[in-house]
Amino acid sequence: MDEKPIILISNDDGYGAKGINALVEMLRPIASLVVCAPEGPRSGYSCAFSAETPLRLRLRREEPGLQVWSCNGTPVDCVKIALARITRRCPDMVIGGINHGDNGSVNTHYSGTMGVVVEGCMKNIPSVAFSLCDHREDADFSPLRSLILTITQRVLAEGLPTGTCLNVNFPLAAEFKGVRVCRMAKGRWINEITTCHHPRGYDYHWMVGSYVNDEPDADETDNWALTHGYVAITPTRVDVTAYESMEQIRGWNL
Amino acid sequence: MDEKPIILISNDDGYGAKGINALVEMLRPIASLVVCAPEGPRSGYSCAFSAETPLRLRLRREEPGLQVWSCNGTPVDCVKIALARITRRCPDMVIGGINHGDNGSVNTHYSGTMGVVVEGCMKNIPSVAFSLCDHREDADFSPLRSLILTITQRVLAEGLPTGTCLNVNFPLAAEFKGVRVCRMAKGRWINEITTCHHPRGYDYHWMVGSYVNDEPDADETDNWALTHGYVAITPTRVDVTAYESMEQIRGWNL
Repeated sequence: MDEKPIILISNDDGYGAKGINALVEMLRPIASLVVCAPEGPRSGYSCAFSAETPLRLRLRREEPGLQVWSCNGTPVDCVKIALARITRRCPDMVIGGINHGDNGSVNTHYSGTMGVVVEGCMKNIPSVAFSLCDHREDADFSPLRSLILTITQRVLAEGLPTGTCLNVNFPLAAEFKGVRVCRMAKGRWINEITTCHHPRGYDYHWMVGSYVNDEPDADETDNWALTHGYVAITPTRVDVTAYESMEQIRGWNL
Repeated sequence: MDEKPIILISNDDGYGAKGINALVEMLRPIASLVVCAPEGPRSGYSCAFSAETPLRLRLRREEPGLQVWSCNGTPVDCVKIALARITRRCPDMVIGGINHGDNGSVNTHYSGTMGVVVEGCMKNIPSVAFSLCDHREDADFSPLRSLILTITQRVLAEGLPTGTCLNVNFPLAAEFKGVRVCRMAKGRWINEITTCHHPRGYDYHWMVGSYVNDEPDADETDNWALTHGYVAITPTRVDVTAYESMEQIRGWNL
């Protein structure tokens, strides 16, 4: 009988990405793993799900303690379909990642990796996203191994507060200065559109841009931690109600 | 010289939907309108943006005080590209909707209409989503007119707190019992996958499901308001940090 915990893993870089495969190798010793991840890149898919596309699952790899499935849908689709059709019981944990690239600050809203984790959290499963500030396909994830194991084992043992998931971002460094529990920095993307001219005579546009941190000196933020060599853990809420603004809006007497 | 405020409008049902066109007719008397909306349905697109697809804009309608553009991308793409390439200055307000269907409770995470509004809010523009609890293509939006005008004029005059947008949901009713400022109800989707068998011999899956309200008696929630005939206004945050969990995670001493 398999006594190991079950962890459901997904990402937004696709099942073949180096980051998700590095995560699988790190976690195989401690858990039974079900991977269900997109067929290809789904960066920037947020919490999107496929309302109008039929979904297909393909079993890509099966070994003792490991199944790897791909799905033609979004990261959130992968979690939903895995919970409904693949895992033999509710998993003990959902993990998103390891993402190739930073999911700090406002990126948390766009991130498909965070979509995975918010979906897990909405299903009341303890859920954690791991991201490395390195977009390269061949990024080196080995410095993350020890902390990923520690955090995963802690969450498996203790759970997380209901409605709260973790957004864990690692700086690009061979060694980390430490771990900081942070809030989201205030920041924004600028120059997001680059326009090109098609040979057939029309304009088309690429979504690109650069990120601006609006509070670079705020040492309680994720951006500060990451730019100073620390790992940033941002506890993240499913309840997005702005409680502090309710009285003001009530004062409108609508 | 045009002294009217400028409002940027988008949605997730597409530029041809009845809801967005009803909104345009309601707001034309009070503002100069720029509509930039998806070419077709984008329900469930959340805050997704198109990292890998070239975007195209098409001008569909141009009259004094009104431009209607369509874009092949997501609701968030529409906001980003309109701000960068269409509006002659930063709009005074961003409005998402009127959505065909309920965006209360956890639907706020999946909603492309809320994607529009969160994007506007991240650009520090006062942003409001309007949704009607009626998915039908020919839903009747006329009962919403008076309150939409009141809320829009109030937000144009006073703005909204930085980092806070409004998620306004209308019940399906000819007359509303009143307006309540609410928090998100705790709820979840169940039975989300329906599996079918393709004539060529493989299984495929549709994302469907039904919503369960986990706290039907909580009269401070959006779900309660809507099921009891009230309009629900939920102030919604861009900063999703779970401040209340930070000390617990710090106690892990990682």
